[in-house]
Amino acid sequence: MDSWTLGGLELRSRLILGTGGAHSLTALERAIEASGTELVTVALRRVDPGGSGGLLEVVQRAGVKLLPNTAGCFTATEAVKLAQLAREAFETDWVKLEVIGDERTLLPDAVELVAAAQRLVDDGFTVLPYTNDDPVLARRLADAGCVAVMPAGSPIGSGLGISNPHHIELIREAVSVPVILDAGIGTASDAALAMELGCDAVLLASAVTRAEDPAAMAEAMRYAVTAGRMAAAAGRIPRRYGRALASTPEAGRPDL
Amino acid sequence: MDSWTLGGLELRSRLILGTGGAHSLTALERAIEASGTELVTVALRRVDPGGSGGLLEVVQRAGVKLLPNTAGCFTATEAVKLAQLAREAFETDWVKLEVIGDERTLLPDAVELVAAAQRLVDDGFTVLPYTNDDPVLARRLADAGCVAVMPAGSPIGSGLGISNPHHIELIREAVSVPVILDAGIGTASDAALAMELGCDAVLLASAVTRAEDPAAMAEAMRYAVTAGRMAAAAGRIPRRYGRALASTPEAGRPDL
Amino acid sequence: MDSWTLGGLELRSRLILGTGGAHSLTALERAIEASGTELVTVALRRVDPGGSGGLLEVVQRAGVKLLPNTAGCFTATEAVKLAQLAREAFETDWVKLEVIGDERTLLPDAVELVAAAQRLVDDGFTVLPYTNDDPVLARRLADAGCVAVMPAGSPIGSGLGISNPHHIELIREAVSVPVILDAGIGTASDAALAMELGCDAVLLASAVTRAEDPAAMAEAMRYAVTAGRMAAAAGRIPRRYGRALASTPEAGRPDL
Amino acid sequence: MDSWTLGGLELRSRLILGTGGAHSLTALERAIEASGTELVTVALRRVDPGGSGGLLEVVQRAGVKLLPNTAGCFTATEAVKLAQLAREAFETDWVKLEVIGDERTLLPDAVELVAAAQRLVDDGFTVLPYTNDDPVLARRLADAGCVAVMPAGSPIGSGLGISNPHHIELIREAVSVPVILDAGIGTASDAALAMELGCDAVLLASAVTRAEDPAAMAEAMRYAVTAGRMAAAAGRIPRRYGRALASTPEAGRPDL
Repeated sequence: MDSWTLGGLELRSRLILGTGGAHSLTALERAIEASGTELVTVALRRVDPGGSGGLLEVVQRAGVKLLPNTAGCFTATEAVKLAQLAREAFETDWVKLEVIGDERTLLPDAVELVAAAQRLVDDGFTVLPYTNDDPVLARRLADAGCVAVMPAGSPIGSGLGISNPHHIELIREAVSVPVILDAGIGTASDAALAMELGCDAVLLASAVTRAEDPAAMAEAMRYAVTAGRMAAAAGRIPRRYGRALASTPEAGRPDL
Repeated sequence: MDSWTLGGLELRSRLILGTGGAHSLTALERAIEASGTELVTVALRRVDPGGSGGLLEVVQRAGVKLLPNTAGCFTATEAVKLAQLAREAFETDWVKLEVIGDERTLLPDAVELVAAAQRLVDDGFTVLPYTNDDPVLARRLADAGCVAVMPAGSPIGSGLGISNPHHIELIREAVSVPVILDAGIGTASDAALAMELGCDAVLLASAVTRAEDPAAMAEAMRYAVTAGRMAAAAGRIPRRYGRALASTPEAGRPDL
Repeated sequence: MDSWTLGGLELRSRLILGTGGAHSLTALERAIEASGTELVTVALRRVDPGGSGGLLEVVQRAGVKLLPNTAGCFTATEAVKLAQLAREAFETDWVKLEVIGDERTLLPDAVELVAAAQRLVDDGFTVLPYTNDDPVLARRLADAGCVAVMPAGSPIGSGLGISNPHHIELIREAVSVPVILDAGIGTASDAALAMELGCDAVLLASAVTRAEDPAAMAEAMRYAVTAGRMAAAAGRIPRRYGRALASTPEAGRPDL
Repeated sequence: MDSWTLGGLELRSRLILGTGGAHSLTALERAIEASGTELVTVALRRVDPGGSGGLLEVVQRAGVKLLPNTAGCFTATEAVKLAQLAREAFETDWVKLEVIGDERTLLPDAVELVAAAQRLVDDGFTVLPYTNDDPVLARRLADAGCVAVMPAGSPIGSGLGISNPHHIELIREAVSVPVILDAGIGTASDAALAMELGCDAVLLASAVTRAEDPAAMAEAMRYAVTAGRMAAAAGRIPRRYGRALASTPEAGRPDL
């Protein structure tokens, strides 16, 4: 049985779900179930830990681990403070670290991100940083003690897929912690590609929550991640330019 | 349960397997099983219908339908003759029609292909033509009475995937018969993409038979085709350039 | 001085201009001049050979060779008939052969195109066929006696550039007559790429005539074609994945 | 006459040349001349300011401005120190700032780069930073007082062109200082594309110095940059999917 380890936790699912963009709690719950995920990330700004009902109950009922995130923070100071509040409220030291640099593209701010990651690691957190697709920055984050790196395939919510596959491969080579493709996934083939490029898992929100049929898309993503993972392990054929390789030789003993 | 109809036959699997390139009958048998396919295409030049053992037994044991193909034919006359021999020998009027125009790229010859297709349809065959990614040619083949059109994603055995996705979409719009992506698939994300572009099924050989682990790749392809099919039906999010869509709004009531 | 030969004619410019889409004769005249072209193609349906003024005068005043085309024809019979009328009216046996298969995409019909090309060549025409990006079809057209092949980069007027660069390279290898990229060019880098892929020239209309500033775009295309041609001849560096090549070595004697 | 301003200097050429990789001083001199450049960047480690002959003489003889660079530096401290030495030796406060994070990809280190840029700007330098294709980082560098930002199209010396065109467009929108595409250019169409994406200039070294014919490639790049610049200004046609736009209408008054 294929499994992987993230921050000391053994997981079977290689899909991580975000909750942003969901039209209703019911739709979200069905999507979580259909996805087979074991880990769901929730924006701290969006939940009331002490409140009754709502998002948290959905997550608990689904029996998945909660991963609080710092979406909406623009500085290291803000993000660290929010993470500390979350630790207390949710009794988890896991945090998906987002430090955004730009309201328009929601791409991360490299400098603030590294500073925040270092402070949170030093403070005992299990840190999963959302980063851009920069191999050098990824290595810095891994060296700082983050348990994974989570590069963007393309801007959050854009559905543009993986704009620079080569950089994802370079990140895969640059770090030994898990690489989780985070942001930009639009459809199943994007998720499969992420795994083929060497990612350990895929995190997505809008692609599922804003799809016409979120539960169906969640299931599609589940299969896609499995397909990409298996294909990466199965040893694909090389790409051949300029000359086809007949599967049926013209002469001599056929190759079967 | 998702099913589709090809030449009057109802199928559940959307994966069709070729046998060329297999290293052994055992490896092939395992791959067929892992793929979940219900239809396997075999080059007529490669089998001895009356012979004992071998490829045909594998296909029969797997309980899948045999689809003879005319790989290696360079003219309509050759292809028609071979198809007629096949009908007699295998007691099937189904034929995957290949009329190759070029030993180097193994791309089809449009003119001979249309001529052969017309003659075989007139002769009562159920014709599945391997064609290039030309929407006009695809419509000609459908108009001639072929039960499907099978455009190449890229040259046979190249593993280059789908070189011109726009043309596959145009073919999808141009015909009402099933569109089966045939040739060029290298890995799982290619197969998922084919389905997302509107194909009804994917045919592949080398991608599985020449993979390091054919059975594992066959299973990956099975999941990939399912993933792509489901994603296409689930209604993907639009692609957004230039401006990200925050899944966590900064102000006001969160969208969940 | 770089020159090339097309149908026995020596040309210096590697840009061929179409006139469709021009907003005014004045704009067209300026664009022709700025492009440096020596060959302009005109739809036969658009001109009145005996009429005074208009398109023909512009072409004559510019001192460029007229290349009548059969745009708008859907069958070989139509196209041949129109070409014959043109020969008489314009006193030229050159014809850009278009046989369209689809009003929507304006892509050529392979079967009718080959038939028309053969009949026109037999009738003494100098035939330049607009074809799709199919290497097998291109070789058929060359074998039929066409003096060039003119593959589409993408559909006419689409501005999508070269959708399948690999096929243009395969066409370049498949024929010994000039290859002229025809249709789909949107901007200068597309035209440069066409030349880098091995084309001998580029034909475009909409990219110039429908640009905001047609004369400026025509001049841009002139430079782009020159740039691509020179780059192709200058021997580009190989593409390197995964490992950068420092231009400034860290140790030892620098390479300069 | 098209000109642009960089750090208060008015320039006509939009091509900046690096010297790394040149096989001989003679070849370099010819390439500089053929390129029409007015600005040449030289690695400080490679030149001996007081020495006679060599690289510096070539640059001086060509009448171009010298732009020292800090290639080979891995920390802000190193880069700042080297820049200060250069200022004294070459009597220029211009510096192309490189702070590399990775020997393998030679991609910049975002954190050290921002630190070095800030210190050099504070120290009165005219700073041109080589950065990755991160819009947030680019804005940080511009905000720090850099006179331009110089994003990588792909890794130095890779010849992969512009891997993520969308990010170059986002950088163009994110800053008001000149954007200079630096690193990754392989051939003329890459340089034209850079300009079409909104860059003000292109910097390249290996693409010219390591080409088979450096002077010819330099001239090709000169034309390519001009072509891309003009095309960007001329207002290209939109990209149209799914439906071609006939340049020759079938019915009614032709549009010319």
